[in-house]
Amino acid sequence: YQPQQKLLNSVDRCVDEALEGIVSSSGCLSLLRGHRVVVRADLDALKGRVALLSGGGSGHEPAHAGYIGSGMLSAAVAGGVFASPPPASVLAAILCLRDAGVSGVLLIVKNYTGDRLNFGLAAEQARNRGVAVEMVVVADDCAFDRPSKAGRRGLCGTVFVHKLAGALAEEGCPLDEIVSKVTEAVKGIGTLGVSLSPCSVPGCLPSFDLPAGEMELGLGERGRERGNHMTNPASQSHLSLKSGDSVVLCVNNLGALSCLEISVVTRSAIRYLEGRGVRVARVMSGSFMTSLEMAGVSLSMMRADQEILRLFDAKTTASAWPNLSTVCISGTSYILDPPAKDMQETSHTEGPLSDVMRKALEAVCSSLLQRQEELNSLDRASGDGDCGNTHAQAAKAIQEWLPGHIVPGCPGQLLSTLAGLVQERMGGSSGARGDMVNRSGGEDMVNRRGGGYLDALCPAVEELRRLTTSPPGGHMAILQAAVEKAELGAESTRDLTARAGRASYIATVHVTLPDPGAVAIAAILRAVFEALGGQK
Amino acid sequence: YQPQQKLLNSVDRCVDEALEGIVSSSGCLSLLRGHRVVVRADLDALKGRVALLSGGGSGHEPAHAGYIGSGMLSAAVAGGVFASPPPASVLAAILCLRDAGVSGVLLIVKNYTGDRLNFGLAAEQARNRGVAVEMVVVADDCAFDRPSKAGRRGLCGTVFVHKLAGALAEEGCPLDEIVSKVTEAVKGIGTLGVSLSPCSVPGCLPSFDLPAGEMELGLGERGRERGNHMTNPASQSHLSLKSGDSVVLCVNNLGALSCLEISVVTRSAIRYLEGRGVRVARVMSGSFMTSLEMAGVSLSMMRADQEILRLFDAKTTASAWPNLSTVCISGTSYILDPPAKDMQETSHTEGPLSDVMRKALEAVCSSLLQRQEELNSLDRASGDGDCGNTHAQAAKAIQEWLPGHIVPGCPGQLLSTLAGLVQERMGGSSGARGDMVNRSGGEDMVNRRGGGYLDALCPAVEELRRLTTSPPGGHMAILQAAVEKAELGAESTRDLTARAGRASYIATVHVTLPDPGAVAIAAILRAVFEALGGQK
Repeated sequence: YQPQQKLLNSVDRCVDEALEGIVSSSGCLSLLRGHRVVVRADLDALKGRVALLSGGGSGHEPAHAGYIGSGMLSAAVAGGVFASPPPASVLAAILCLRDAGVSGVLLIVKNYTGDRLNFGLAAEQARNRGVAVEMVVVADDCAFDRPSKAGRRGLCGTVFVHKLAGALAEEGCPLDEIVSKVTEAVKGIGTLGVSLSPCSVPGCLPSFDLPAGEMELGLGERGRERGNHMTNPASQSHLSLKSGDSVVLCVNNLGALSCLEISVVTRSAIRYLEGRGVRVARVMSGSFMTSLEMAGVSLSMMRADQEILRLFDAKTTASAWPNLSTVCISGTSYILDPPAKDMQETSHTEGPLSDVMRKALEAVCSSLLQRQEELNSLDRASGDGDCGNTHAQAAKAIQEWLPGHIVPGCPGQLLSTLAGLVQERMGGSSGARGDMVNRSGGEDMVNRRGGGYLDALCPAVEELRRLTTSPPGGHMAILQAAVEKAELGAESTRDLTARAGRASYIATVHVTLPDPGAVAIAAILRAVFEALGGQK
Repeated sequence: YQPQQKLLNSVDRCVDEALEGIVSSSGCLSLLRGHRVVVRADLDALKGRVALLSGGGSGHEPAHAGYIGSGMLSAAVAGGVFASPPPASVLAAILCLRDAGVSGVLLIVKNYTGDRLNFGLAAEQARNRGVAVEMVVVADDCAFDRPSKAGRRGLCGTVFVHKLAGALAEEGCPLDEIVSKVTEAVKGIGTLGVSLSPCSVPGCLPSFDLPAGEMELGLGERGRERGNHMTNPASQSHLSLKSGDSVVLCVNNLGALSCLEISVVTRSAIRYLEGRGVRVARVMSGSFMTSLEMAGVSLSMMRADQEILRLFDAKTTASAWPNLSTVCISGTSYILDPPAKDMQETSHTEGPLSDVMRKALEAVCSSLLQRQEELNSLDRASGDGDCGNTHAQAAKAIQEWLPGHIVPGCPGQLLSTLAGLVQERMGGSSGARGDMVNRSGGEDMVNRRGGGYLDALCPAVEELRRLTTSPPGGHMAILQAAVEKAELGAESTRDLTARAGRASYIATVHVTLPDPGAVAIAAILRAVFEALGGQK
């Protein structure tokens, strides 16, 4: 059993290298020599104002260095992975801010025993040196249903506190006022997390085992509760919300959840809250306080009045703060009717060719269905082995459509109708290819966009161009010649490296079987030929 | 073997639900009914300007809906997971923009056969309806060393194109001019990706197998090359860079890499480029074009002159665009000297108590080392089983320090020195706890911050307070009483639910063994007592 594979140079140096990466890519941050302390590069801007300092164990990036900037934190102190930073570094950060001439320092600390102890000690040492220091402890975890002396832990809701306190400090608000406003806001913040996987500290085994099909409710150290809910009043740590309340919602990727999943969770969270009559004022969705590569998500909520929203919306230069709009989410309609005009082709009518075209279509469909396995097998040599399935899917769609519909009398309308049908049923490039195969005179367009079946299609189209100038009664001969050219063309692909589509990405594979797309083209043309009475 | 566990409601609906999540959480986006098309809610703002449309398979979020906003895209069309969107939806998006009165529409398309076909078809259909449409194809992949007809694929460098074209359109630049400027910029864009794991389409098995210890170079469909390099001139797809060139760097999380790793990679990439004399002008680092939960990273670079940088720096409201500074990265110094003043305690001197304190310290250290396994075993019942190791680590640090150093004569200096020693050696809460255990009169502070060993420490401290008023010769009796109270206190923890520290998070575990921290406190006090001549 091996430790999780990581993209790191060194286990021992990973925290220092990550901090260097954050600072050296920012342009407006500095690193304090000999400490894991990141500070604003423009410390002068803090003169006379309250500075904000946060921090804690590493592994939770972008917390907290990503929240440094005007309108948010002034500095952040990092510990080792999941370990509290030493008081000496917290003190160094405080004294560095003092030297910049700040009027006071507010420590924003997550409620973990280690962080409280180490930040608390540094605060006392700084006070002994004459610095005005206050500490706000954030305890937003809602995963406990019984009280405990250590209390609720500090999770992603801390980012809300950085934002509110940061906006206040930027406005020039004095230290005691920031403390009282933030302390009040913290009461309205709650977070609950779930994870589908553990994470592992670099060089170590995963932090816990999780059987397939289960998920873990609650984050942080061991001893998670299962089955309770952050707004359940029976839980000691619930956040009470009632209909009509307004909240800010933060959907936080704990590390390895896909952005697709995060968006799905975001939708569900908004719907759930709105279903309970809660007004969702703002939503932030992304990676704000992670736990290394844990595949999970935490939901944080903050009760928000107009003043809270004003502070939340205030500008910040912090790199990890998202680009949010100030529009209220709930009550904003977001479904637009598509353009009514020009989307649909005009309705079609039967014509003298309808019957013969129906017959040709039936023949093409049954030919493609017969060859499904053959085409798949050819495709396995150079592609993903589904060429037969793709064509069969189109054939079935047309077969299902035929009985209940008029086959348009105009060939152009027919091809357009079939293209729509195939596009509707199939994703990927097949839809467009189906459309193009069915278009008359499509050679030029096809050449411009590529495709492995060109070696069959192009010679056949070349032959079919003669239809416009052929003498009466000569059509079948031209069609026969086109079929034969297509079949020759398909055969000729045996010795070519594929040139477009997926097969072309295998630059080194020399294709010795014919291209399945080319074989399909030849089969389609032969089916049409035979349906029109041509000899086998 | 099971499909990867995902946090989704439904495999079939996941793309639609994700789009709803993105749009409903934004406040400035709309969804086109019946299509997977996201458009700016303020379409009126586009009147008379060029609109930008991009899109492609889903699973690459935040691409492309996250790049919609003023200064970037006007709309985005999504296909199924890793599948091109149908031409009908691309056409609906174009016509929707036309109806808003735009002067033209630029399609920004990644170089995949399916995307080129479907966007290309829709472009022709739109042109047939009188809309001025142009298409720019982005092919930034550097993982091929031979030419292929399908060419290099479009990867995260596409985000640069969104930004440049978006800034130009916002300025009112006409369609043909945007096309020519962007076409030129695309030649200077290159991307190379590596992954430590595959990803899996919802409901499917992982896309490829990767043996432990290997990583995959190159992204996208099958047929990756190994071992070549994006700036290697021997590769057909290299991006040529020479000393003195200026670039924008994008370090893109492909999904499941931890933010810690991304920062480490960012540092290495900057150093490597600077080492080759390349000037890194801007760096963006985060999740910009993912592949579901693939654990990997791609590096994109764009050659950047002043005009490119001006466009790159222009404002945008797109939610996935990061909060970047406009400072040039290379050449900015980011190391700050820590505050020189007030950090160090004054140097200390020997005193009459130095010898007796050395003796006491030696006794405490050897007592803690003797009890290492006992403390670990107690800790396994309620914590993580390392309480003995933690105390042993501190004891060893002190033992190593003792021979070469003067033990300060002043107790306050000694305690401060020991606290520094322990902080230096140990992360987490142990450092500060070590400090506090060694501080005189620390009870009040400890109570304010919590700790499982309080039940032993508090009664002992209560007893020791009597030292200040005790008659001469009464010290040892008081110390003995303190030791006994600590031992009683430790015993009393047998029947308590732990109240602080990690153990308190296991709310339902009833602790029947004594708290290891309390046992350690009692042992420390007894060691001091015996070293001072007290009877065993």
